[in-house]
Amino acid sequence: MNFVEVIAKKRDGLELTPDQLRSFVSGAATGLLGDEQLAAMLMAICIRGATAAETQVLVEAMRDSGALWRLGEACPGVVDKHSTGGVGDSVSLAFAPLVAACSVPVAMMAGAGLGHTQGTLDKLAAIPSFRPVTSRDGAVRALEQCGVCMASQSEEIAPADRKLYALRDITGTVPSLPLIVASIMSKKLAVGASALVLDVKQGSGAFCKTREQADALARGLLAAADGAAMPAVALVTDMDEPLGDRLGCASEVRACLEVLEGRGDARLRDLTVALAVEALMLAGRSADEAKAQSAKALQDGSARRRYDDVVRAHGGDPAPELLPRPRRTVTVTAARGGFVQAIASEELGWLAVALGAGRRRQGDSVDLAAGIVIRARRGDRVEPGAPLVTLELGDREVALDSMVARAAAAFTIGDTPPSPAPLVDRRLTRQS
Amino acid sequence: MNFVEVIAKKRDGLELTPDQLRSFVSGAATGLLGDEQLAAMLMAICIRGATAAETQVLVEAMRDSGALWRLGEACPGVVDKHSTGGVGDSVSLAFAPLVAACSVPVAMMAGAGLGHTQGTLDKLAAIPSFRPVTSRDGAVRALEQCGVCMASQSEEIAPADRKLYALRDITGTVPSLPLIVASIMSKKLAVGASALVLDVKQGSGAFCKTREQADALARGLLAAADGAAMPAVALVTDMDEPLGDRLGCASEVRACLEVLEGRGDARLRDLTVALAVEALMLAGRSADEAKAQSAKALQDGSARRRYDDVVRAHGGDPAPELLPRPRRTVTVTAARGGFVQAIASEELGWLAVALGAGRRRQGDSVDLAAGIVIRARRGDRVEPGAPLVTLELGDREVALDSMVARAAAAFTIGDTPPSPAPLVDRRLTRQS
Repeated sequence: MNFVEVIAKKRDGLELTPDQLRSFVSGAATGLLGDEQLAAMLMAICIRGATAAETQVLVEAMRDSGALWRLGEACPGVVDKHSTGGVGDSVSLAFAPLVAACSVPVAMMAGAGLGHTQGTLDKLAAIPSFRPVTSRDGAVRALEQCGVCMASQSEEIAPADRKLYALRDITGTVPSLPLIVASIMSKKLAVGASALVLDVKQGSGAFCKTREQADALARGLLAAADGAAMPAVALVTDMDEPLGDRLGCASEVRACLEVLEGRGDARLRDLTVALAVEALMLAGRSADEAKAQSAKALQDGSARRRYDDVVRAHGGDPAPELLPRPRRTVTVTAARGGFVQAIASEELGWLAVALGAGRRRQGDSVDLAAGIVIRARRGDRVEPGAPLVTLELGDREVALDSMVARAAAAFTIGDTPPSPAPLVDRRLTRQS
Repeated sequence: MNFVEVIAKKRDGLELTPDQLRSFVSGAATGLLGDEQLAAMLMAICIRGATAAETQVLVEAMRDSGALWRLGEACPGVVDKHSTGGVGDSVSLAFAPLVAACSVPVAMMAGAGLGHTQGTLDKLAAIPSFRPVTSRDGAVRALEQCGVCMASQSEEIAPADRKLYALRDITGTVPSLPLIVASIMSKKLAVGASALVLDVKQGSGAFCKTREQADALARGLLAAADGAAMPAVALVTDMDEPLGDRLGCASEVRACLEVLEGRGDARLRDLTVALAVEALMLAGRSADEAKAQSAKALQDGSARRRYDDVVRAHGGDPAPELLPRPRRTVTVTAARGGFVQAIASEELGWLAVALGAGRRRQGDSVDLAAGIVIRARRGDRVEPGAPLVTLELGDREVALDSMVARAAAAFTIGDTPPSPAPLVDRRLTRQS
């Protein structure tokens, strides 16, 4: 069967054989299939979906399209963490030193941001001289030195995903559950940690707007991990408002430092600890042990010190005063008093992009100093004139009037308090 | 809205605005949109479909992507004919001189064959020195000289269709009703005859396997003609067996000459006359007048003489003895006696391609002398050893054993006669 017939089969909603799916993935990685055929297949999968078996084959074929780092073999027990993408989510930068300070190694692969969520790779770029590892040798060396490796997405890891993701971005085929699962899990499995903690965002600021979508994505990711015999757990967490109180590269590094010093935004701290506890439990600790150890690591300063070790092991200078600072700040205030009933996370994310803190298109440059500080959270009671957000302006010229208006409009203020939303809505495992 | 969002809208099954559809078509014609975005949109249309209004916009935008010949203005009353593609369909070569001999001018745009059906352009190539017209001036001149113009698909006519058709061919997006309607009708309307006769094939050898599919295609084509105020009529005709008794370029020219001489295959002759009668009725003749005039033109030799005029007006030499002849022939006979219950048209079409009479891929060369003569028709009673087909071999080396076996296997011979199938199953107009 030639590849046109394979495309036609998926177009008609039929299940593809493992060999047919592998020819698609290897055709993407090698360039043997043209972009137009890959795009047609992506759209057919996007509309027709894929069975669990098909998704598993896609995950494995994409994983096997490049190098396999097998970090779990070099560093037994090493844990990976992945978030499906939220606004103000600086967890990774605090999670890794916290978990490592509890004697569980952490390996993460960081991507560049695109659209309304910032990428960890961009935040790391705000730390002077920080160089993410790009090879297995570098990853193993960093793990030996500080118990953490922060890798940047490398050409050699899952090249089929790199190709297909770039195509999905321009062909309207991003929102496909099997393609999202394959994209995330192929890279996780190629890095090959011993266990995986998943943070699946749910709410207006996330890809998964509904409970059903979040469940489907979490279960898809867990099934793919299970298919590769990688222990995994998923927390489904709230993204109806930004997670932490900072958006922007340097600003989010500062937010993470506050968490590691036992201060800072309560939601950001609580989720960092909740995910760290899951990581420690995957490493064999009981729930009580995991909670006690992570609390202690924050309290006794060992997590904060580990941050410095991690930065140095990656060639960087951890001194907080070296982080880029905004050129000036503008505070946006409430026009009326009342309760903050909602914060439009996605709109704030796009506003941060407009300030220069993120990318509209691949290849855009990022202003490391630009960002947003959220001064009023959902449920807060504010007086007229109370601060809502502070815009941190970098070197980029921006239309300030419209930015201020957009920032104010992102807040819904009303007379009654909103019903509280739990930060961690539920916990899913392969069995649950 | 950028084009990724337009793709996403169709992906989600929503109706596109005229401007959004026009941006798709002009992006295809100008190269402003990449092949991967065009392919994704084609697949989304293929799966999600298009409304009648969307289809009409596609037709018009594709028509307007290139030159408009407006032949109806230069040559009032000129009729066009289109067949949706069948095996052994040599009608065009006989239809044009027959209708012109009845004083109604005919303009047709001929395409090269691809797959199991032969293209008129390839058949014309079997006539020594025949040069299809490629410009409006050439078309008008030919119409003035002989009442017929045979044009080859020109770069300047509907370039968006040329681009999109090439993409559809390799992305599994050929079988989409709105895309088929837009492809056919954009070219017909760009040529701009005064009226259109449609021959919609139905049956195992056609794109439309079922009555429902043929109705949908015929109605789609008629609606597009109506939308552009072009009078049109469609005959839905049988393709459960090959139309005529010849497949192959020179062989089909001979079949057409036999029809024009009042001899030859009855089905081919009957359909040629039926379509000619429709053309004459579109030109204002009554049904009785149309039948009488076409019968007379065959009987008195004026249609046959007009063929010679048409060939000469296109620079060709009409002498039948100059048509390429097969190097040798092999006759395949019946292994058992009985009734011919079915002839696998599509398989015979592919067999002709294997003999060299057609193209498997765009760019393949065609052997003008190669072909197939069908010796037993559906419903015929045959004795063991009676001829079924004669393979006409050209210059190409072929695996004769397997060809003979495939030819024999294309015939189903049983003990009972098949139920008769009408050649012209029904006649559709915009109103009917």
